[in-house]
Amino acid sequence: MRMYDLIERKKRGQRLEGEEIRQIIEGYCKKEIPDYQMSALLMAIWFNGMDEKELTDLTYAMAESGDTLDLSGIEGKKVDKHSTGGVGDKTTLIVAPIAAACGLKVAKMSGRGLGHTGGTIDKLESIPGYRTTIPREEFIRNVNVSGLSVIGQSGELAPADKLIYALRDATATVDSIPLIASSIMSKKLAAGADCIVLDVKTGSGAFMKTEEEAFELARTMIKIGENAGRKMAALITDMDTPLGRAVGNSLEVIEAVEVLKGEGPQDLLEICLELSAKMLELAGLGDEEECRAKAREAVGSGKAFEKLVEMVSLQGGDTEVIKNTQLFKKAEYVYPVYAGKDGYILKMDAEKIGEAAMMLGAGRKTKEDKIDMSAGIILAGKTGDKVAEGEEIAYMYTNITDPDIVSDAEKCLRSAYIYADEKPEKKPLIYKKI
Amino acid sequence: MRMYDLIERKKRGQRLEGEEIRQIIEGYCKKEIPDYQMSALLMAIWFNGMDEKELTDLTYAMAESGDTLDLSGIEGKKVDKHSTGGVGDKTTLIVAPIAAACGLKVAKMSGRGLGHTGGTIDKLESIPGYRTTIPREEFIRNVNVSGLSVIGQSGELAPADKLIYALRDATATVDSIPLIASSIMSKKLAAGADCIVLDVKTGSGAFMKTEEEAFELARTMIKIGENAGRKMAALITDMDTPLGRAVGNSLEVIEAVEVLKGEGPQDLLEICLELSAKMLELAGLGDEEECRAKAREAVGSGKAFEKLVEMVSLQGGDTEVIKNTQLFKKAEYVYPVYAGKDGYILKMDAEKIGEAAMMLGAGRKTKEDKIDMSAGIILAGKTGDKVAEGEEIAYMYTNITDPDIVSDAEKCLRSAYIYADEKPEKKPLIYKKI
Repeated sequence: MRMYDLIERKKRGQRLEGEEIRQIIEGYCKKEIPDYQMSALLMAIWFNGMDEKELTDLTYAMAESGDTLDLSGIEGKKVDKHSTGGVGDKTTLIVAPIAAACGLKVAKMSGRGLGHTGGTIDKLESIPGYRTTIPREEFIRNVNVSGLSVIGQSGELAPADKLIYALRDATATVDSIPLIASSIMSKKLAAGADCIVLDVKTGSGAFMKTEEEAFELARTMIKIGENAGRKMAALITDMDTPLGRAVGNSLEVIEAVEVLKGEGPQDLLEICLELSAKMLELAGLGDEEECRAKAREAVGSGKAFEKLVEMVSLQGGDTEVIKNTQLFKKAEYVYPVYAGKDGYILKMDAEKIGEAAMMLGAGRKTKEDKIDMSAGIILAGKTGDKVAEGEEIAYMYTNITDPDIVSDAEKCLRSAYIYADEKPEKKPLIYKKI
Repeated sequence: MRMYDLIERKKRGQRLEGEEIRQIIEGYCKKEIPDYQMSALLMAIWFNGMDEKELTDLTYAMAESGDTLDLSGIEGKKVDKHSTGGVGDKTTLIVAPIAAACGLKVAKMSGRGLGHTGGTIDKLESIPGYRTTIPREEFIRNVNVSGLSVIGQSGELAPADKLIYALRDATATVDSIPLIASSIMSKKLAAGADCIVLDVKTGSGAFMKTEEEAFELARTMIKIGENAGRKMAALITDMDTPLGRAVGNSLEVIEAVEVLKGEGPQDLLEICLELSAKMLELAGLGDEEECRAKAREAVGSGKAFEKLVEMVSLQGGDTEVIKNTQLFKKAEYVYPVYAGKDGYILKMDAEKIGEAAMMLGAGRKTKEDKIDMSAGIILAGKTGDKVAEGEEIAYMYTNITDPDIVSDAEKCLRSAYIYADEKPEKKPLIYKKI
């Protein structure tokens, strides 16, 4: 195999064989293939795409470039979910307990946040004592005991993907559906679950700006997963607006607890029930209707909430703060933000809201930044709400004392809102189920 | 300027501004832009091309990346020619003296051969004493005295092109007409001539395999040159078959001398007269008909041959070998090669013939290889000739004694010939004049 010839073939729109793709990934990880050849190949893939077989081969090759999680020690159906990322997306904290309450096994590795999006692991670490890094055996044991465990990525899952992603990020080849799909799925395959539900976000706060793109990405990931013998489903969901009302780590845990207690915002509950129902359906627990009923029952009966408490306890976390969220450490300052004019909220730019939260201390600009667990934003008004000028639309939670930073965050947050004179049509929360 | 954004724009099919292109070339030469970003950009250009303005900007930026030749010290019209390279292409040795004999000024820098194609500078060095490296002042003086001087590239003409070409060669982005055109033209612009005639080869022995591609390349180079204020013309000529009968350094000089004495092969003479006539026409010496007559007269009167002798003399070369080519050092061994069957010669693969000559010592496999000046091939039969099995179709000239190498070269040479039962239609030597 000469890398030159493979670039040439892909450039001409010809397909690469499985063995060739494997050698590319291996050679790149060993630094035998230089960055400049890899980036030329990635750009050729950006233009010419990859077919289903090539994508499956690429995903496998990346999944096998590092550790793969052996979940054979866990009894029962192992389910996983993946969200393409958004602002205020705390669904894992709700969906995993619901699935576990219904008898499924959720052995989940999650990530940290960067930029305007948050990460589940950061959110969990806002629970005092919660250990996101535990030995592999303890992780498996916790899942067998309680039905769920959510931890940070241990070992190296798909290191090839990490290397390639960094190169794509520097060469304008990130926005390729085949490359995004294989990147996500390489980590999912390495993480070992039988059933995988994808939550593909679309809208201003998401990477996929249109429903069509999101659908194409979902379909591509589903094909890769099915070719790898996994049961797959996907929801295309809205990310024009942040999910729920809380943005920020402990604020989002509190909101997740409220949802599990039946007290949270309706949009968040609805999406979590749909995601859970899809998991149950994939695991063979009934048809769509039955599974939705089971998920609702898991919340209504309090069993899902009990599962969350059980998980927190097994991971060494303080269950008191979960049972009484008033005990979470509060941010020193809470600043209300007011509507700029009379009218209806037409749009809320999720990305800007995420950025404002980051400025208040809730997120990282660079990987090295520290997070303030109590910082964030509570959204009082949401899309479609009628507001009067000077009315409170949001509250900023922070420990930052520098008035310039707080003022910048407020400006950023206010710029996220667009008002209309007429009540806007309600957009669906879930565009499609696949 | 962020290189990332420029890659993104080109990927989306948007144009780059002159200042941006200049910064890319500068940044890449200074190693501020890494290879992996440059190769991603080159691949995006392979797919999306560049418009006329972008190409002119790119060519200028590469031309200005190093030395540019100041020809202002030369009186009269400065003309140059460029051939896209072929096997047996000794046209410069004939065209430059013709142009000089007609009163034009030819201050030409030529290259060396690599692989199956030869280089003018290697050919000139087969003349004992000929200095291809002389000080800039002497070069200018020689042109003023005799009307012509052909030397090797001194200094660094378009070093950006050299760097970029090496990267393209490793990333399958060589075969892009915009990139080929700007690469060639960057060196031509840096070399300073007012009028440039391009000889764009097409056919099995050329880089452009079809007439359409060759036409497109010629048109692109003409546009770039004209935008840079140069007078431009091009011929699209055949390279399915080597030009003339000689392949190899001193063998080609001898053939060039024969043509200038009115004794050489007709195809070679014809193409040289056309190229010279185009030069004269660009320089304003008359219409096509008149210029062709002048070129023919320069040969017929012996004036062009005198110009060659004058140049060789000024460059320190032995004029006796030019006046009597029998004095050129001969190869030790001459092996005839016989026709494999009765019939007409249908095709002669110029690339294979060039490779066979290289194996006999006439060319370089790598830049470091030494050339045997007397080695090469004389083609007895040419396309369209009727031959009988066992008849001599070529002679191999070599000093190599290893019978395996000689036998391999013979096999390679024989494989270049394809025979037919019917006399093939004569293909034109010149497809198009632009």
